[in-house]
Formats: sequence, structure tokens, C-alpha cells
Amino acid sequence: QRHGGLSGGVADAGRIADRLEQLWQIARGPAGGADRPAYSAAEARATRLVAGWAAELGLRAAIDPYGNLWALPPEHNGALLTSGSHVDTVPDGGRYDGALGTVLGLELVAELTAEPADGNARPALLVCAAEEAPRFGAGTVGSRLLAGLLPESELDGLHDAHGVSAARAREEYLGALSDLPRLDRPPLHRIRAHAEVHVALRAGPDELGVVTRVAAPRRLEIVVSGEAGHAGEIGMEERRDALAAAAEIVLAVEAAARAEPRPTVATVGTLAVSPGAVSVIPGEVRLGIDMRGVEAEPLDRLEQTIREAVQATGARRRVETRTTLTRGGTPVALDAELAAQALAAASARGITAAETWSGAGHDVQHIAGYAPALLVFIPLRGGQSHTPQEGADMSDILGVADVIADVMRTKLIG
Amino acid sequence: QRHGGLSGGVADAGRIADRLEQLWQIARGPAGGADRPAYSAAEARATRLVAGWAAELGLRAAIDPYGNLWALPPEHNGALLTSGSHVDTVPDGGRYDGALGTVLGLELVAELTAEPADGNARPALLVCAAEEAPRFGAGTVGSRLLAGLLPESELDGLHDAHGVSAARAREEYLGALSDLPRLDRPPLHRIRAHAEVHVALRAGPDELGVVTRVAAPRRLEIVVSGEAGHAGEIGMEERRDALAAAAEIVLAVEAAARAEPRPTVATVGTLAVSPGAVSVIPGEVRLGIDMRGVEAEPLDRLEQTIREAVQATGARRRVETRTTLTRGGTPVALDAELAAQALAAASARGITAAETWSGAGHDVQHIAGYAPALLVFIPLRGGQSHTPQEGADMSDILGVADVIADVMRTKLIG
Repeated sequence: QRHGGLSGGVADAGRIADRLEQLWQIARGPAGGADRPAYSAAEARATRLVAGWAAELGLRAAIDPYGNLWALPPEHNGALLTSGSHVDTVPDGGRYDGALGTVLGLELVAELTAEPADGNARPALLVCAAEEAPRFGAGTVGSRLLAGLLPESELDGLHDAHGVSAARAREEYLGALSDLPRLDRPPLHRIRAHAEVHVALRAGPDELGVVTRVAAPRRLEIVVSGEAGHAGEIGMEERRDALAAAAEIVLAVEAAARAEPRPTVATVGTLAVSPGAVSVIPGEVRLGIDMRGVEAEPLDRLEQTIREAVQATGARRRVETRTTLTRGGTPVALDAELAAQALAAASARGITAAETWSGAGHDVQHIAGYAPALLVFIPLRGGQSHTPQEGADMSDILGVADVIADVMRTKLIG
Repeated sequence: QRHGGLSGGVADAGRIADRLEQLWQIARGPAGGADRPAYSAAEARATRLVAGWAAELGLRAAIDPYGNLWALPPEHNGALLTSGSHVDTVPDGGRYDGALGTVLGLELVAELTAEPADGNARPALLVCAAEEAPRFGAGTVGSRLLAGLLPESELDGLHDAHGVSAARAREEYLGALSDLPRLDRPPLHRIRAHAEVHVALRAGPDELGVVTRVAAPRRLEIVVSGEAGHAGEIGMEERRDALAAAAEIVLAVEAAARAEPRPTVATVGTLAVSPGAVSVIPGEVRLGIDMRGVEAEPLDRLEQTIREAVQATGARRRVETRTTLTRGGTPVALDAELAAQALAAASARGITAAETWSGAGHDVQHIAGYAPALLVFIPLRGGQSHTPQEGADMSDILGVADVIADVMRTKLIG
């Protein structure tokens, strides 16, 4: 049952599996997957469950103003070694995404607490709220609020499909957890090192992935304004068809991303046609573009190429274009020393590991602005990420627990 | 006030203007235009108003099972010379579209009734219901039902923005007009000639347009199925992006139509992206294509070129495509003899007129399957068609009334 390793750590396969099962059972969507949307009652139930497990370890669980759960060593005002992930899910989500990193955060606390307490740092748990984007169209909400990267005022402008704003959902979420202590000043500056384990989002090599760079999404909204008109009465040469122009932009976005090196990508994920009747020439089209790269230079060049293509299409087709940067993400470099230590620790334990990058955003990248941060991917097994079919092998899970513990153990004294 | 002409007809500028005003005042939309949607209470009020004017001319007004108003000469079972248009409007519509042809139909009845009654045909009015497409996404509903070109069963599948089916709306419409006699067997086969006057939908030359061909919309729905995925995690070369494929199709549709002669056009008016999140690669896109031509050959070639382009894009991009013909329109030729007579009559009166075509559908094209049919466009003045700014000059209106009367007078004996 126990993964072979050097340390003989306390991470427990049965406890991990049991806790993942308890989280999985909290709320199930109509399609059978986990259903704990951002800032929902189901996320609150999961958070309370985790708070209870943290209390069993002697930690004091409290909720910060953004809904994040901090489980802290009592009567300790010194440095913290934090770990954790998130407990909300996409609709019809899986058993591991977020939940695994959270449960392993508890194992890390157990592991480091079992050490002789001769350090000046103590292990703690940090579970960030509202990480998944589907409900409000914006992800890592709790950690971005915590890090000051998402203005409070923007929560009023984010709405779910039922028109509930993220601001109101957060208020209800805090209300649902009002029995837990509040932590008005989260101890972000006391973190000496932070680690997040996450099941990989893409199927790939059979190894631990030590993430050195994370692509923050950079987003453009483009509005193309042409001229609506009767589809039967206006000749092809007289038209200023907003959708034909938008189609050129979609293909230009794709071509621009293809011209950049591998992890640099661009996607037109939304496209809305107005008036949107089959017999009416489209007068206006609104496109949402997501650009990502783990290096700043290709990402900047990609954005520039797309902006120029939009302008050229507008001029050639006599349509107006308006391009707005709706999210100005910049690639984040995680801590090089922690990554090197993780690779070395894996190697010493005979666990295959390699440097990798993340195209998706994770809470850890926002903590990285305040403390050295480490992100390790467990190989994705079973089916696709963010589905009930996603899986992870217990041997990989126990292996990563050992690796993270090895790294964090070196930070107890500082 | 009276337009100079040879006949000294009875068409009356004051009466025409007054009736257009009464129809205009029935219901006004929030933006100030006429607001009498297909099969609505407002269309029913307009129809009742017209029925009253027809009764003043001694006609017996009745409603057929499709909501069309027939105002027929009583105690006459012989041939009919019908004229009329429609009284429903687009949202925020104009004062002339449909209403003008309806009011002029009454003038024609007055004109021909004033003739010595030595013919075996009698003038009558036919006002077709639910001509405008915006409410149900389908136009000329009343005339297509009448002509057997729209199966009754399809009404259940057409819905407005509030989810009301066209079947239910028609039932309510018939209920609102239940005080008028019902005409269970509309006398389509007794029509000897049918004429519709309509304000032109496109601004153009300063002359009457005698329409010889009408483009019936032919429509395709294309579903492109690729593979959804995380916008940050899947490389450009691994993607099967349904929207990028759809963009190629949009441009191929445009290029195919541009390669055909002038009145042949194609429009992608609707495009829906699924799942439609900015951070998700589109997995499915649904496009609605409207193709029109006044000649069968370029229209057939256009459809074939589009189908081949869709297949080629699907194969090249490894996406599935499903192409469905949702409406199989074929160009309609109107009666050549009536058109020639109308041109000659205009010429004899010193009114400039020319042959033209219609890219939009009109009720008259469906009547054309049963009787010789004539469609005459009055020059569009003021602003765009289908807006409150559309206009028509009274001199043009009186001129066309004379021309139509001249043509129909020759059909009184047959």
C-alpha cells in the first residue's frame, strides 16, 4: 500500500482515498460528476469538511474575506510552510482536480508535524476558494483577490447563468461558513514556501511534472461592426458583413499562434453574431480571444500580430473594429530553487520527474508573488481532465507526497 | 393631388394616406416604428380594419384557416382578380411595407367595380397573414400554408422568443378574428390574375420595378463537430477547433457567392459556438446559411460549391460536418404576359418602369403557382426598408394604382 521511498513518511493511502471519496460524495451533477461550483453551498460544505480534518491535526481553521480557508498552527506567529489547492469543481468534474492537492496539503502538515519541532517555521494549509472558471467566467478568484490581482469591484460585474453576481455569491458563501472563525488579515507575508500538487490537465508523459512556468491567460475582446441588411437584397460587393470579417480574424488568430513555439496558443472561444437571423447580413460580431504563453516575448508578439490582423481586416473590409484587453495576463515563473529541489528529491527517491509548464492557471501562481512557490503535476490517468473519468495512481500520489515533504522539510529552519 | 394619367382612375390620395395612417397607429414599438408581429393581436386588429374597409366596398370579408383575409364579391362564383399584400410588420417597421399593397388592393377593387360590369371576373382582396419572418424565423407563412408549400406540422416547430409556437399563435390569431366569417375552402383556383404592389426593399433607380423573378431563400444548416478542450493546455497542431473550421466555411460561402452573377448571394446569418467559453476550444459550431438567386442554375451551382467546401474543410481539419437543407427554395418566375402588360401600361402613361427582380420573398410568389401573378415595386424613398424611415411618394403610389388597374381591366373578360 505504501509507496516505496527513502523517508518512510506518514502519508496514508487509505486516508487519502477516503477523503477524496468524502469530497466526491458532497454533490453530484446530473451527469454523475462532482458538482461543487465556485462560491456555492457545495464548495462551502467541502471547505467545512476540510476544516474539520485540519482541526484533527491541531490546526485552527479560519476563513479569509475572500473565502479562502487557512488552517494555521495555533499560537505561532512565525513563518509558514503552506500547501493546498481548491475544493470547487467544474460542472460534472472529477475526483482529483483540486481535491487531491487539498487532501495532500493535510498529509504534508501531518508529515512535517511528525518531524522534531526544531524549526522556526510551521506547516499550514491554504485552500483557495472559487478556483474554477465556469460559473463566473473567471478562475482563481479567491487567490487573485488574496494577492490583490483582482479588484473587489470586478466581482459585481461577474455573473453566473442565473444572473447571480460573484460578489453576492461570495457573500452567501461567507455566510454559509460564518460558524468558522474569520481571518481578516490573511498571513500571506508569513509564508516561507508554498506548494500545490495538482493532477495534470493534459495527458502526457508518465512522470511527475515540476512546473517552472505558468501561462496566465491574456484576453482580448474584439467587436466588429459592419452593416446589417436583407440577405436577399444586398449584393455581395456592397456588403460590410461583420461575420465574414470576424471569420478572417478567427483564422488570423489561429495562424498567428501557429507561428509561435509550442506552448504559445490562442483560441477564439466565444463569437456572438448580431442580429443573428438567417436572412439578415450580420451587422456586429463580438469575439473573445484567449492567448497564453509561458514566455513573455512570444506572447507579446502574438498579441501584436493579432491586433495588426484585426486592423488590416477592418480596413480591407470597411468594417469598424474595437479591440479591448480584458485580462492582461503575463507568464509567471515559479521558484527555480524549489523546482530544482523537487527534481532532486524525486531523483533521490527513484521517481521519474521532469520540468514542465502549465497552460492553465493555478492558485499557486498568485501566491508566487509573495513567497517561493512550487507546483507539481501528477500524471493524468483514466480519461480527460475536468471530467468524472480523470484519474490518478496512488503510487504517484504517495510519491509526490514524499517529494513535497522532502522539499518543505528543508524550509523548516530559515 | 391626383397623379396625371390617361384613365382618370378612382384611386384617392387622401383615402390612401388616411388608411396608411390608421394602420400605422394600431401598435407602435418602443423605438417608434410599426409593431404588428406575425399572428399577433396587432396584426388581427389591422386585418379587422381592412375587413371593414372591404365591407364598405360591398365585399364579404372572411378568414381562411391560415389567417389570410379574403374579401370577395358576394353571390359570385366565377373568376377573381385579386390584389393585396400583408398587414403584419417587422419590429420597428415602416408605414408602407405590406400596408401599401393592402390599401392599394382596396383601391383596385374600387377602380374595377366602377367599370361597367360586363366581365365575367370580379375584383377581390387577398391579404396574407404572417408574412414577416422575425417573429418565427420564417416568412410568408400564411401564403405558403395556403399554397401547400409549408406543411401544417412545421408550425409546431417554429417558436418566437417567448417560446410560443407558430401553431399556437395562429390559433390565437384565428380566435381574435372569430367574429369574422370563416372561409374553409379558400378560392385559390378561381383567381384569374393576382397583383401585389410592394415598396421596394432596396433603394435603387427612380422607377417602378416590374418584377419578373423572385428569389426564394434556400437554406442550409451546417453543424461542425470538432473537439472541445482547455485553451491553455492543447497545442495548436493537436486541435480540432470547430470554430476555426467554421470560419473557413464562412469565407468559402462568401467566395462562392461572389463567383456567381449579381443577384446570386449567400449569407451566413447565424453562428452558434458550443460550449462558448473564452477559455475552451470550441467543440461544436452551428451555422445557418441563406442562399438566393433568381435563376436556378447559379443557385444550384452555389449550393454545390458550398457543400464541397464544407466537405473539404471537414476533411482537412479532421472535424465532422453535417449539412442539412432546411429550406429548399427555387427561384420563381412571375407571369411574363402580366409583366409585359404592366411595362406597356406604364409606358402609355408616361411612367418610367423597368424589369427587375426580388431577392426577398413575397406572398405573390406562392400565389404564382395557381394563377398568373404580377409584382410591382414602388421606388423606396426616405430611409431603409423595414424601418420607420421607409417612404414612398404619393405620385408613385397613384401611378402604380393606374398601371395595375390598366392591366387587371384587360382580365375582366376571359
